Amino acid sequence: MTEKISKRDKQVMKSLEDVGHEIFKQIQKGDNPTYELPVRNLNNVFFDEKSKTIKLGDKKSERQFINVAHSRKFMQTMLVAAEINKVIRESATVSIRDLYYALKHTIADTNENTFEEQGESDPIIEDIEASVNLLREELHLSASSKGVIAGNMKIKDGKDTIDLTKMGSGGWGVPSNVEPDRIEIKDLKAEYILFIEKDAVWKRFNEDNFWKKNNCIIITGRGQPSRAERRLTQRLHKEFNLPVYALMDADPWGMYIYSVIKQGSISLSYSEESLATPATKFIGLTTQDVETYKIPKEVTIKLNQGDVKRLNEMKNYPWFKKKEWQNEFDNMKKKNYKLELEALSRKGIRYITETYLPKKMKEEDFLP
Amino acid sequence: MTEKISKRDKQVMKSLEDVGHEIFKQIQKGDNPTYELPVRNLNNVFFDEKSKTIKLGDKKSERQFINVAHSRKFMQTMLVAAEINKVIRESATVSIRDLYYALKHTIADTNENTFEEQGESDPIIEDIEASVNLLREELHLSASSKGVIAGNMKIKDGKDTIDLTKMGSGGWGVPSNVEPDRIEIKDLKAEYILFIEKDAVWKRFNEDNFWKKNNCIIITGRGQPSRAERRLTQRLHKEFNLPVYALMDADPWGMYIYSVIKQGSISLSYSEESLATPATKFIGLTTQDVETYKIPKEVTIKLNQGDVKRLNEMKNYPWFKKKEWQNEFDNMKKKNYKLELEALSRKGIRYITETYLPKKMKEEDFLP
Repeated sequence: MTEKISKRDKQVMKSLEDVGHEIFKQIQKGDNPTYELPVRNLNNVFFDEKSKTIKLGDKKSERQFINVAHSRKFMQTMLVAAEINKVIRESATVSIRDLYYALKHTIADTNENTFEEQGESDPIIEDIEASVNLLREELHLSASSKGVIAGNMKIKDGKDTIDLTKMGSGGWGVPSNVEPDRIEIKDLKAEYILFIEKDAVWKRFNEDNFWKKNNCIIITGRGQPSRAERRLTQRLHKEFNLPVYALMDADPWGMYIYSVIKQGSISLSYSEESLATPATKFIGLTTQDVETYKIPKEVTIKLNQGDVKRLNEMKNYPWFKKKEWQNEFDNMKKKNYKLELEALSRKGIRYITETYLPKKMKEEDFLP
Repeated sequence: MTEKISKRDKQVMKSLEDVGHEIFKQIQKGDNPTYELPVRNLNNVFFDEKSKTIKLGDKKSERQFINVAHSRKFMQTMLVAAEINKVIRESATVSIRDLYYALKHTIADTNENTFEEQGESDPIIEDIEASVNLLREELHLSASSKGVIAGNMKIKDGKDTIDLTKMGSGGWGVPSNVEPDRIEIKDLKAEYILFIEKDAVWKRFNEDNFWKKNNCIIITGRGQPSRAERRLTQRLHKEFNLPVYALMDADPWGMYIYSVIKQGSISLSYSEESLATPATKFIGLTTQDVETYKIPKEVTIKLNQGDVKRLNEMKNYPWFKKKEWQNEFDNMKKKNYKLELEALSRKGIRYITETYLPKKMKEEDFLP
């Protein structure tokens, strides 16, 4: 069953084993076994002007075995690291829930369980990701993925070569691991990536052959995208220099999703350099489009209290300080409405693919 | 843009136009325009012993134009029917949200909107589906779909032929419309369908090449399946006589999802004859497996109040009256635990694909 272990996997296993060796040395010397790890809280998260992504800072903390407050977590950290090593050696990939169950047991001669709930093992996994500076995917842990993709490129995935121009009405389901040692991008002819917030809108673009007529890749994360859709987008941008355009609702949620695609999220700050694509541009929808495209007012939606609160928060994010975004936020507040991509259907079934998007692209009418 | 309209589409358009012609005749005769439609509430839903699916009964109600309580809905029904006809003529497929926005406008010389929110247009769509006895997909309305599929078969979808043995780690994203005039099933060599509740478990089966080694189709709806995954499963069963096995968590939610795959849901009762697959068998997980497969107690989860309430309800459903199911419900209550598929990881990463499922299949250890 065990396939040949890849070079990358060997490096990853070495990183994990180094942790174990270090602890072992401490024990031999008679020291209190201590594991150093980055602080993962808001005080250690910042927007890095150089990489233009959200990042984890330099603050470190220690986890000590002989410390009543630390010893349970110390034990859990070692268990998780060892299990991940085993999973990689078996050439498997497991979900974080599998990992929790695999490790959950009552410690011999005690009534103590290693883990009581998955809420205990998940943060330990994140600690390890951050401390060895590896992606979850490199640790052979699968996150959920739910997006689909189509367009002018091929994917080599194991022994299969998948032609993304021949996916019919369904698209290819983006797998959870799109690292280069798993997923090879081949015969890419598309000229840009259109990252679409909603599945229903993606279906419209696919049905209308937008990707064929406009030689692009269309991808959706079906709402807030998973890591995999973001990672694949970053790879397409970095390795092939493809521009990325985001097509979202004109509401605080759509704009937040855009900001996650572009500079990342606080909760995944330790991995955002590998997930975010700072070159992404916002192609729409904006509240300013309502006048430009003569969208009837009936299809706009009044802002609620939560929307206004979110708008005020987002206005203060460093990455939304550019005047184009400040204008858009001000306009949304002044007009007191938001709108969904589907609202363009009021102008005709294919208005979004045949008129709106082509005009936006031609006029380069983007927000930064 | 408009492609040739298929024979099936012409039949569907005729059904809708017949509604309009009938109303038109009533107006010419000077009658109060009246539209008859099936009652869609609990009092008119039953479990049909013949088809073994949940069905809508014979009760009808009338919607009259000259009736203060009906006239708004009457107007909405005509608008929706006309718009659907237009969508079909344009060879397009739209989401129900698109349809809402396409029709939302202020009626000339009034302050009245045709629809105030999607909550008004959705039930009208269901009324039309039920009264003309057509599937939503046949009306060119796309429901959401979120599942993936892999296995030994090909799909012809428009001009594309998709080989479901060559989908890599991703699987093919099930499209929202899998009707025979859109999706042709070709070169089917698989011998059965494994319908898996959870995406993470589907990934385990795909990574371990279970479908190749055991010559089956693996499909997941990622939780409660959408119409498309159920409809495709029914087609594979009816057209190719493939047995269907459901692999769910051993909890009330998993068992409810199973019952939807098998006999349908109350909310879609008017379409269940085309969506449900009564021949489906429950291959696991059961609480009785805990002893059979020596699953450590630590990975079971204590029932909560909601679980017990649901169990008591399900015990009374006519389709769960068989003694095997009554035993399983009683056992779950007595042991006071439930468990998830991932709990099998405690026995080894690939225990579920290499030991559990093969043994279950070999011993035909199913619930009916």
